[in-house]
Amino acid sequence: MSELRGACIIGQSGGPTAVINASAQGVIQTALKADCITQVLGAAHGIKGVLEDKLYDMSKEDPAELDIMKYTPSSALGSCRYKLADPDKDDTDYKRILEVFKKHNVRYFFYNGGNDSMDTCNKISKYMQKVGYECRVMGVPKTIDNDLNGTDHCPGFASAAKYIATSCAEVWQDAHVYDTGMITVVEIMGRHAGWLAGSAALASLTGCGPDLVYLPEVDFDMDKFLADVKAIYDKTGKCLVAVSEGIHYADGTFVSEAKTSATDGFGHAQLGGLAALLAETVKNATGAKVRGIELSLLQRCGSHVGSKTDIEEAWLAGSKAVEAAVSGITDKMVAFKCTREGGYKCETSLEPLDIVANFEKKVPREWINEAGNGIEKPFIDYVLPLIQGEADGPKENSLPRFAKLKKIIAE
Amino acid sequence: MSELRGACIIGQSGGPTAVINASAQGVIQTALKADCITQVLGAAHGIKGVLEDKLYDMSKEDPAELDIMKYTPSSALGSCRYKLADPDKDDTDYKRILEVFKKHNVRYFFYNGGNDSMDTCNKISKYMQKVGYECRVMGVPKTIDNDLNGTDHCPGFASAAKYIATSCAEVWQDAHVYDTGMITVVEIMGRHAGWLAGSAALASLTGCGPDLVYLPEVDFDMDKFLADVKAIYDKTGKCLVAVSEGIHYADGTFVSEAKTSATDGFGHAQLGGLAALLAETVKNATGAKVRGIELSLLQRCGSHVGSKTDIEEAWLAGSKAVEAAVSGITDKMVAFKCTREGGYKCETSLEPLDIVANFEKKVPREWINEAGNGIEKPFIDYVLPLIQGEADGPKENSLPRFAKLKKIIAE
Repeated sequence: MSELRGACIIGQSGGPTAVINASAQGVIQTALKADCITQVLGAAHGIKGVLEDKLYDMSKEDPAELDIMKYTPSSALGSCRYKLADPDKDDTDYKRILEVFKKHNVRYFFYNGGNDSMDTCNKISKYMQKVGYECRVMGVPKTIDNDLNGTDHCPGFASAAKYIATSCAEVWQDAHVYDTGMITVVEIMGRHAGWLAGSAALASLTGCGPDLVYLPEVDFDMDKFLADVKAIYDKTGKCLVAVSEGIHYADGTFVSEAKTSATDGFGHAQLGGLAALLAETVKNATGAKVRGIELSLLQRCGSHVGSKTDIEEAWLAGSKAVEAAVSGITDKMVAFKCTREGGYKCETSLEPLDIVANFEKKVPREWINEAGNGIEKPFIDYVLPLIQGEADGPKENSLPRFAKLKKIIAE
Repeated sequence: MSELRGACIIGQSGGPTAVINASAQGVIQTALKADCITQVLGAAHGIKGVLEDKLYDMSKEDPAELDIMKYTPSSALGSCRYKLADPDKDDTDYKRILEVFKKHNVRYFFYNGGNDSMDTCNKISKYMQKVGYECRVMGVPKTIDNDLNGTDHCPGFASAAKYIATSCAEVWQDAHVYDTGMITVVEIMGRHAGWLAGSAALASLTGCGPDLVYLPEVDFDMDKFLADVKAIYDKTGKCLVAVSEGIHYADGTFVSEAKTSATDGFGHAQLGGLAALLAETVKNATGAKVRGIELSLLQRCGSHVGSKTDIEEAWLAGSKAVEAAVSGITDKMVAFKCTREGGYKCETSLEPLDIVANFEKKVPREWINEAGNGIEKPFIDYVLPLIQGEADGPKENSLPRFAKLKKIIAE
């Protein structure tokens, strides 16, 4: 493969994670060292920054600040939730992207995100091939949801999982302090896949795990749920429940959106989320003191309790994307191939963007217990190696010191 | 003062904190070394354990487990919210306490808690004096609310403040990731005093602080609040708001309990808490995307991001209580006297239990800005030294390793 000289763009897209910036850092630092890459451009707010020709010159950044990007949560370059049209129906955006690519002689495009972002990446890759513009396009995976196809796991998942497990263990301690009854319901992100809610079960390794775990992979039944909770509460006086935000009834209706006795009966939307709804329903059914806790944004930006393994792998994914592209590869996403027996090992592979985009990987049914209210050991064995090691990011005043980028628009 | 030989009891009461066990550890470890203390008893669930004669023999615990109590959140011995009657009206409980004290020859009583617990401690102390039973009674302060009188600050506050500041900084990062508008409302504990909500402003030191902060020390005005939020949102497209759960209107009604346009108009209680209510109200008023986040129990049990200073001071408070009691002192609470100019220094003092009980220390009005929607520098200067240093508790599997007590009932 002949050497391809030109600029590269790195864009971040979709919901932020604790380590998406580690991947961007991996791309930027590796690209800055690559002889054939003439300029490293950061797209402001993902593909929107390309469409608007709002591109930062990453060589102008202080290397020390780039170094601590890996400990800075959320998307340092800015993110977007912008869906490209089908190019056969409307190629306006694609023409504009090509125009901007040509203007800056962009020959490398790295896109850092989840399902939708890999779809964007795939569409751009195919369009550039179709119009004969030579540009190497690589996807860099990212999603706390861990639902990308073709990879053992996704950067960002493990740090969120660690946050969730640590928080559940601490909440367990708090919820067991009185000799009076207490039921606690913790709502965890994950609309279609239960990887994150399942990770709450890691807290069991501390002796302080949830009694019940509900994932979207199993249809939810409110009566069975209430019976499950009541059985544990009646026996122990306590019950800690972890639920995925995406739990749904057999007809596909999300529990969070369905009317229940906990709503006002007039069809008014209730204000709290799923945790508040379930807490109210459990309270009505048991008479117990119940508390609903929604981990909300906290779980995806909690870099202070991030996984070192996750940070390093996120950086590696970005770096490998550049190495592969420079070596002549295009139209792929960096993926992880891992072995766990005989000690955890993680290597990267390259997967076709087609197979990654628009497919949501679920938790295998056999990793969930038969009753559909708990997690089996293979799930724990799968997640545990991923959360190992502590994020030891820099601090100032004993508070996190985040990267401060200058974001100088490229000339 | 003559030597007083006998057993001691340590009890924990009220809401748990990240470091209340550090104080219990300070009491237990110091008492175990004191020659005149013949037995160290841990009361199961505070004063309830005394009334029920459910007392653990702390000498039977593994010293290594006692050592890691300081990194274990919540109340390891169990807590309670039990209010003793006025002894002049009903002395049943006091007679029972005296009976249990006599049975075990309890001559030292250490009670670890907040306002209500210091009231309990004070009542027991006065009763024992009245009936002529020699028992040295000492209060060991604890409360995330930081509202105890007679002390510079309270153990437990700083770790919660650090959790809140760290979380707000991370949420700021997350909430600024898109180029679309976003308003975020974070609800923080503190029913009558705004120390915790004010501590969200520490996040400003990271460059990622809340734009607006509302404390219960200033009457809340919904119209002014909405105008404040709208002004910032219109200017920057974002707004991060920290509110104390205890904000109330001028007539004293808690905002969380008042009917607003966000409730259903039929007077049905809304399910979510204050954050959900304010989020809905702001959404209706601005049309912006709004997210409400309640830090809930997470903020008081988040020992993984605890303050080393807080842990050490909590231990010191417990240890000093024992030293003082052994030296002949009674009827006091251990308090902190601190200087901040020329470097932070913290020493202990002993304050009469009377002046501590049943008084809630508020944030000085002059530490809040004139508009009542932000924090002034003296507040930051006050809190910042307290959150310094990292909790470096033991881990297993990269998850917290909490103390495991055997809790063997004393013979």
